Amino acid sequence: MLNIIIADSELEMVPKELWSFPDAVSYSKRRSKKLSEVLLDSNYMHRAIDSVFPGESTRRGRPDIIHTLLLACQESILNKAGQLLVFIHTRENKVITVNPQTRIPRSFNRFQGLIEDLYMKRTIQNNDQVLLEIIDSNLKEFISRNGLKNVRIFSPEDRISSVSEAVGDSTDTTLIIGGFSEGKYRTDMEGLGNKYSIYPEELTIWTVAMEAICTYERLHKVIS
Amino acid sequence: MLNIIIADSELEMVPKELWSFPDAVSYSKRRSKKLSEVLLDSNYMHRAIDSVFPGESTRRGRPDIIHTLLLACQESILNKAGQLLVFIHTRENKVITVNPQTRIPRSFNRFQGLIEDLYMKRTIQNNDQVLLEIIDSNLKEFISRNGLKNVRIFSPEDRISSVSEAVGDSTDTTLIIGGFSEGKYRTDMEGLGNKYSIYPEELTIWTVAMEAICTYERLHKVIS
Repeated sequence: MLNIIIADSELEMVPKELWSFPDAVSYSKRRSKKLSEVLLDSNYMHRAIDSVFPGESTRRGRPDIIHTLLLACQESILNKAGQLLVFIHTRENKVITVNPQTRIPRSFNRFQGLIEDLYMKRTIQNNDQVLLEIIDSNLKEFISRNGLKNVRIFSPEDRISSVSEAVGDSTDTTLIIGGFSEGKYRTDMEGLGNKYSIYPEELTIWTVAMEAICTYERLHKVIS
Repeated sequence: MLNIIIADSELEMVPKELWSFPDAVSYSKRRSKKLSEVLLDSNYMHRAIDSVFPGESTRRGRPDIIHTLLLACQESILNKAGQLLVFIHTRENKVITVNPQTRIPRSFNRFQGLIEDLYMKRTIQNNDQVLLEIIDSNLKEFISRNGLKNVRIFSPEDRISSVSEAVGDSTDTTLIIGGFSEGKYRTDMEGLGNKYSIYPEELTIWTVAMEAICTYERLHKVIS
């Protein structure tokens, strides 16, 4: 089983401090939702974010990159083969567990709605099956409580290694990838696992996930 | 160089026959655009599509899957290494050439706007650089006019082969992947190249592209 944890993801509901800003108000009106029910999205609320959290409008509120990441992971052959588990850890220390059976909506608007529902209801179910679940937990607690092993951290500032070296050769592996478009991990990763950088330039989080998945698939003969 | 052609993509502007339908009208109003300037999107116009083109509302109007595909391809390590070219051929026999330098907007709404601009202006430029260009051409003409070699076609109904067999071992390869979410190629592929199926179940177009790119990268030592 390959476990992928997207750490410090920039996924959060609109913080209360932003509720009075015009771009946040007009965005929630356009979507016919209360601001308490809306995901922060820097594409639409960058002025509000920059006013309250100066300099953070390019980092905070990025459900779009989590959407693309989940489309890549959930639709991978590794997931169809039942050998992938994806967890989304957020900046507020929540962790979303994604059932391998969960079909991610192709449309971003529907994905938004799904995640907003999840924040309200804590689980998304289809009959008896829990498709998505969100709990409160920091990264270290989550890893230790779930007995996740062979933790390896993708970290762009570290020494360049091959993807194979970063993924390792154990079938039971946990890879941590940062869930943000720029900057560093907010969580202190000290003692969690070794760090690897697979390319000298910045990569998107779905590119890193896709490289890791493809390497794992080929190493463990899921595909040839 | 790996050439990827997304064939028979379900990318088109809203056809005139749909302009009087309420869901099309309200969608274009919400986006403050004329219907002649709006991409067909089955997420918002499925009633109109089903009324005019019965049974086609799950196939036609899927800019969302082209968005995800382009995010996967353009952000790949193979593209950053200058060894990938992506072409989007559409159901109306138009072909979009994507400059390897083109940064695809992460937000779907911005991507839509970009493609709508492209349909209006025929090219999207940044200073002297053509980022996107759209021309009228069918698939066969396009392939022969551009001298694309070693054409291989991903086709889900054919005999299952490995991804390595499908990609082949030439550095100069052209892969055709269907740009639709269900059904068959509309273009007659006879004589264009051999056909390969890499998995017994349906795969999304970005999963196929991602597997092909990762196999090519590893075979030609772009990554290890």
